[in-house]
Amino acid sequence: MGRVTERRKVIRIRDGAVSTRPDTLVAEEPLEIRLNGKPLAITMRTPGDDFALAAGFLVSEGVLAERGDLQNIVYCAGATVDGSNTYNVVDVKTAPGVAIPDITLERNVYTTSSCGLCGKASLDAVRTTARWPIADTPPVRVEPELLAGLPDRLRAAQRVFDRTGGLHAAALFTEDGELVDVREDVGRHNAVDKLVGRALQNGDLPLSRSILLVSGRASFELAQKAVMAGIPVLAAVSAPSSLAVDLAAETGLTLVGFLRGGSMNVYAGEDRIALRAAAAQG
Amino acid sequence: MGRVTERRKVIRIRDGAVSTRPDTLVAEEPLEIRLNGKPLAITMRTPGDDFALAAGFLVSEGVLAERGDLQNIVYCAGATVDGSNTYNVVDVKTAPGVAIPDITLERNVYTTSSCGLCGKASLDAVRTTARWPIADTPPVRVEPELLAGLPDRLRAAQRVFDRTGGLHAAALFTEDGELVDVREDVGRHNAVDKLVGRALQNGDLPLSRSILLVSGRASFELAQKAVMAGIPVLAAVSAPSSLAVDLAAETGLTLVGFLRGGSMNVYAGEDRIALRAAAAQG
Repeated sequence: MGRVTERRKVIRIRDGAVSTRPDTLVAEEPLEIRLNGKPLAITMRTPGDDFALAAGFLVSEGVLAERGDLQNIVYCAGATVDGSNTYNVVDVKTAPGVAIPDITLERNVYTTSSCGLCGKASLDAVRTTARWPIADTPPVRVEPELLAGLPDRLRAAQRVFDRTGGLHAAALFTEDGELVDVREDVGRHNAVDKLVGRALQNGDLPLSRSILLVSGRASFELAQKAVMAGIPVLAAVSAPSSLAVDLAAETGLTLVGFLRGGSMNVYAGEDRIALRAAAAQG
Repeated sequence: MGRVTERRKVIRIRDGAVSTRPDTLVAEEPLEIRLNGKPLAITMRTPGDDFALAAGFLVSEGVLAERGDLQNIVYCAGATVDGSNTYNVVDVKTAPGVAIPDITLERNVYTTSSCGLCGKASLDAVRTTARWPIADTPPVRVEPELLAGLPDRLRAAQRVFDRTGGLHAAALFTEDGELVDVREDVGRHNAVDKLVGRALQNGDLPLSRSILLVSGRASFELAQKAVMAGIPVLAAVSAPSSLAVDLAAETGLTLVGFLRGGSMNVYAGEDRIALRAAAAQG
């Protein structure tokens, strides 16, 4: 419950000088996500926004798509031997009538990778489970200058990073560059799940006019989470992976990488980027 | 098989100028790890060193501890509908007599987080499964100056990062600072698994005189992997999490963070760091 940071004693060595001082660390704790009472996944996360994290995770997994799909989310007491509530186990109850995907062994081992046996199978799995095809979202057109300014705004909104240096951040912006929400977590996938889960709880899915900015790299998993939430533009401060680019190209997601210092690379979905100036040349 | 990078067309926007050029991306593909024919986990990884990755993963999970525990590792043909070999499924066969931990649903969902219901349970799980208690390893004593020089040596040894910017790296050094091995992967945990798996294959476990350096942050999971391989010193270029520090303190692991520019923070196990100069002061 809000244990976002913890204090520990640290020995600092700088230019040969040794000193002892307290240091602020990002908190990391396991969270078990149960679906209708059944254990589904465990993720290492920074405590806080746990209900949003669980809800967003289930959006990515294709279980939840709108606020009405969710009956309630509770912390489970009694998950430990002594019956105490660790606030590390949440149970998500779906509304009557919500179809639950087969929770098999194999399904479970997909929980953090969300993939199949090969890249193609991974792409197919996302395409077939996505509720809101990105290609069908309303036309969004973003100026490169607007995108270029987002990392500074994310950075300004990051509260914990400056103290710990240990957090990934993810932020949602409107197509006009207005910051809607920002989340931080030891796991970049958790930060995105928290954003998406909060949007579900607010009745804001699909996020079809939003830009998702992540502080690090763009992996397949993050691209998948954008697609599953109906987000048309994913921008990353660092590099994308091959499979993230493939997924973006296949689903119509706009994928921007290396967004820093006013520059950027557009890997897919360039129709949403207002490219004036010199025409693209080979 | 060695598809470490892939080429994609990218639109680069720099200072308003738009150009199209080929870009080198880090390859990301799923890998399914089977244990004696049974699916155990799927991880998104950079192809290459897959057998080492699978072996190292199973060291972290407490299944393998020495070369003799391993009978063989093969790529599975026939994992796809058309029977082709995607080189994305490996089966690890253990030698007769190797005890296999219970592969339950819950065990499976621990595969990437390797944790329990709370931080304490996570720490307990590592302590009870570790084959080589770190506290019992031979005395290793490292000069801060030696540690300070390791990031540059890692960086020099990173081959793919400079081309893609998208890889995490992990390296093993001797206590004298000699580079033993370096691996790169889209997932930092995979890079460490590849190092540890290779060491198992070479008959080098436990790595009780080694220093493990990781290019990013030190999470619980990375600290766990160090402990399970008997590595006494874990150094990270960036921040550790609270649970990584707790695990290090409990197991006797030396944990160094923010190792950059000649400075570092020592979070646990400072007895292995040669602290001369000013005595530690509060």
